[in-house]
Amino acid sequence: MRVIGIDPGLQRTGWGVIEVQGSKLSHVANGICLSEGETLGERLLSLAVALREIFARHAPEAAAVEQTFVNRDGAGTLKLGQARGIAMLVPAERGLAVGEYAPNAVKKCVVGVGHADKRQVDHMVRLHLPGCAPKGPDAADALAVAICHAHHLQSARALVRAGAGR
Amino acid sequence: MRVIGIDPGLQRTGWGVIEVQGSKLSHVANGICLSEGETLGERLLSLAVALREIFARHAPEAAAVEQTFVNRDGAGTLKLGQARGIAMLVPAERGLAVGEYAPNAVKKCVVGVGHADKRQVDHMVRLHLPGCAPKGPDAADALAVAICHAHHLQSARALVRAGAGR
Repeated sequence: MRVIGIDPGLQRTGWGVIEVQGSKLSHVANGICLSEGETLGERLLSLAVALREIFARHAPEAAAVEQTFVNRDGAGTLKLGQARGIAMLVPAERGLAVGEYAPNAVKKCVVGVGHADKRQVDHMVRLHLPGCAPKGPDAADALAVAICHAHHLQSARALVRAGAGR
Repeated sequence: MRVIGIDPGLQRTGWGVIEVQGSKLSHVANGICLSEGETLGERLLSLAVALREIFARHAPEAAAVEQTFVNRDGAGTLKLGQARGIAMLVPAERGLAVGEYAPNAVKKCVVGVGHADKRQVDHMVRLHLPGCAPKGPDAADALAVAICHAHHLQSARALVRAGAGR
């Protein structure tokens, strides 16, 4: 199963696609969407077009988006929310349910602690996905979101199997 | 020229379309989009579909969206931002530039003061647009945004004419 993780931002949105086979994870692709345009509407449209292209190319079957807000900065949080709205819309347009994870939950899952810094996330993403070279911290964060979502989906499936076997 | 105003929210998004002929404004239609669905992705998709349908039906040539954030509530502002991202995306998909106005600027334009309450906005919207009955406060706010945008577009055009006549 292919899983995409997205770390949305109004200027730079990281994305990463991984392949999940049983408990084995492998890297498919990762990158950064730059939202281009002079107006906010143009930038959001540019992000939607870029994400739709990535979904069409890599055909993920599951998606997750990082959930974060900027403390004490209403304007910054509103901007981030606008980009996040687009990141949630594009998978929904393809009929995919979208997982949501707080940054601490992602770090705890991938690094083992909730307060890991960007270098640790990059390092652990490379360990989880041999041969993967994240294209910057936003792409590494997005791959971490994808890894976190893959683990959650596996846990959910194991629970279903355990329930069925009883 | 037809102008649409949008007052976005994650649960209820108000919209209002007006016709502008010279300095004369008239009401075309207004309403509320309810974002339906169990997940955030589904609700954002529901909002996008509803707004696209309104744009297709009323074919506005100009659009404006209210710009607001929730002070001291990062989670609330993030939710609002996600709905606002969709409200900005839909006009951009149709090639329209999108005006943005803070609530105080809208109230100052329509009511004359920046701190007007919802009843005053509703009252003045009905005075500006004879025969109009806003379908609730969110629709009245959206009509107020459309009126504000119409006035700004007229002022900009008057400036251009004044410049050309020099």
